[in-house]
Amino acid sequence: MSSPSSSLSKTDLEQQIQFLKEIDQLKSVIRKSPLINQSRRENSAEHSWHLAMYALILKDHADAPINLERVLKMLLIHDIVEIDAGDHPIHEAVDHAAQEAKELAAAERIFGLLPTAQGEELKALWFEFEAAQSDDARFAKSLDRLQPMMHNLETNGGTWTEANVTHEQAEQRYTPVIQSGSSSLWRYAKEQVDRFFLGKK
Amino acid sequence: MSSPSSSLSKTDLEQQIQFLKEIDQLKSVIRKSPLINQSRRENSAEHSWHLAMYALILKDHADAPINLERVLKMLLIHDIVEIDAGDHPIHEAVDHAAQEAKELAAAERIFGLLPTAQGEELKALWFEFEAAQSDDARFAKSLDRLQPMMHNLETNGGTWTEANVTHEQAEQRYTPVIQSGSSSLWRYAKEQVDRFFLGKK
Ligand SMILES: [Ca+2]
Repeated sequence: MSSPSSSLSKTDLEQQIQFLKEIDQLKSVIRKSPLINQSRRENSAEHSWHLAMYALILKDHADAPINLERVLKMLLIHDIVEIDAGDHPIHEAVDHAAQEAKELAAAERIFGLLPTAQGEELKALWFEFEAAQSDDARFAKSLDRLQPMMHNLETNGGTWTEANVTHEQAEQRYTPVIQSGSSSLWRYAKEQVDRFFLGKK
Repeated sequence: MSSPSSSLSKTDLEQQIQFLKEIDQLKSVIRKSPLINQSRRENSAEHSWHLAMYALILKDHADAPINLERVLKMLLIHDIVEIDAGDHPIHEAVDHAAQEAKELAAAERIFGLLPTAQGEELKALWFEFEAAQSDDARFAKSLDRLQPMMHNLETNGGTWTEANVTHEQAEQRYTPVIQSGSSSLWRYAKEQVDRFFLGKK
């Protein structure tokens, strides 16, 4: 390296490439949700792509003004901690404190591969998503509930059928989170859930 | 529906949901590139997620000022036409005119599922990516070459080894496109390609 500044940026790029190689593992984290064609279960990387597409397409349904770029970034990174901490399916009992500790350690390790300022920025964005308090995070969370719901509706109940989820449980586990980001998506979701479970009777 | 405007937005939402279900099929379009852990080949949906992460992480390496939100959108949608037109691997001969016609028809059909203005916006963004003339598109294209290159380097040559690609062919097929968006990523890429092929001698 000929100068301190080029040596510094070389190091930054090497850290960034290391992170980008590391997160390839998200393609091997398997979720419970089926693909719509039912050929296999979805992985967390392609799920993250699909959610980013949900944001891009459905942005005008957010109740509060959102910053699309921030929502896209949140959704792209929201599951990266699963590389170390695994996916925690919505219909299974989980030790929340233990899962939270695992995810926090994962965020420190994986975002810690990046140049410091960049890693801190993404960690803060992941915390914001998890906290679900800001308008951007609430809309991102509502999409993270809507997408797997759509896959269940398209696959004869998907994880609802597998886990013997009742109409009331499905309502409770999906629609309040959707409602907190978008009343129009919530109305659509509630209608679909009701139709699915009432149609089964 | 109680009013024309709510009836209109219901129809928009239904079209948007139809599109979001349709593009689930991108998860079943299989590329030549291996995952880094070599467990299987990559699909085009998770590849699109990985490229969006490349953009988010490497944005400061673009030579020209870029609009990150537009680059993210471009990369998220850039392969959707493959649902109808298939992937055309870089190391295989292809009838370019026929492939282009298939992709154009695919863009019309798939983006045509959306409300008109939204479908037209995404189609224009896809054309811009394909044309590779704008700064945003050039940077997006450079990442679309860099990522599979990294996977080949991490997997003992990956598609280069499979297709008996020479050092010169690898340089020609990857580095000029990377260079057109980022000179620092190009320097890094050239160094890695040279090291890989010289190390094999
Ligand atoms: Ca999740």
